[in-house]
Amino acid sequence: MLVAKIFVCLKPNVLDPQGKAVCNSLQQLGYTNVIEARVSKYIELTFDSDNEESTWKETDKICQELLANPNTEHYWFTLENKEESQS
Amino acid sequence: MLVAKIFVCLKPNVLDPQGKAVCNSLQQLGYTNVIEARVSKYIELTFDSDNEESTWKETDKICQELLANPNTEHYWFTLENKEESQS
Repeated sequence: MLVAKIFVCLKPNVLDPQGKAVCNSLQQLGYTNVIEARVSKYIELTFDSDNEESTWKETDKICQELLANPNTEHYWFTLENKEESQS
Repeated sequence: MLVAKIFVCLKPNVLDPQGKAVCNSLQQLGYTNVIEARVSKYIELTFDSDNEESTWKETDKICQELLANPNTEHYWFTLENKEESQS
């Protein structure tokens, strides 16, 4: 089995309201040296397949079709064997 | 400047409704070999500090106080120099 570890992040020039909220809360809690926070999605998909090439293509298509909004987000991912990924 | 790269994930035994929704959608789109999806948070915090030790402690405290729910989530993070983290 293969595991895709996918990061879906807002593009740098896109406003991140969640990140702003986290940053403001931290500064109110006294963590004044936190100057920026960016909140993104981290998604792990487990595939019942051991074919890295086809799974890589499938993951890329899944990111484009469902997980990432091409207007505001960019994504990257790694592919690992399920056993390795749990070590 | 230092950047903390924080992962906040649901504990393995905790139900992940978002993950279930992603998995179901993918299977309806025809990606039948996707057998599990887990959705988590990936947060980057930028600190106006170069002191790794104090920033590490601060990040750990922030995770416990604000970012992770100790009942249902666990977290881990790395600390990098801002310049390195953008390469």
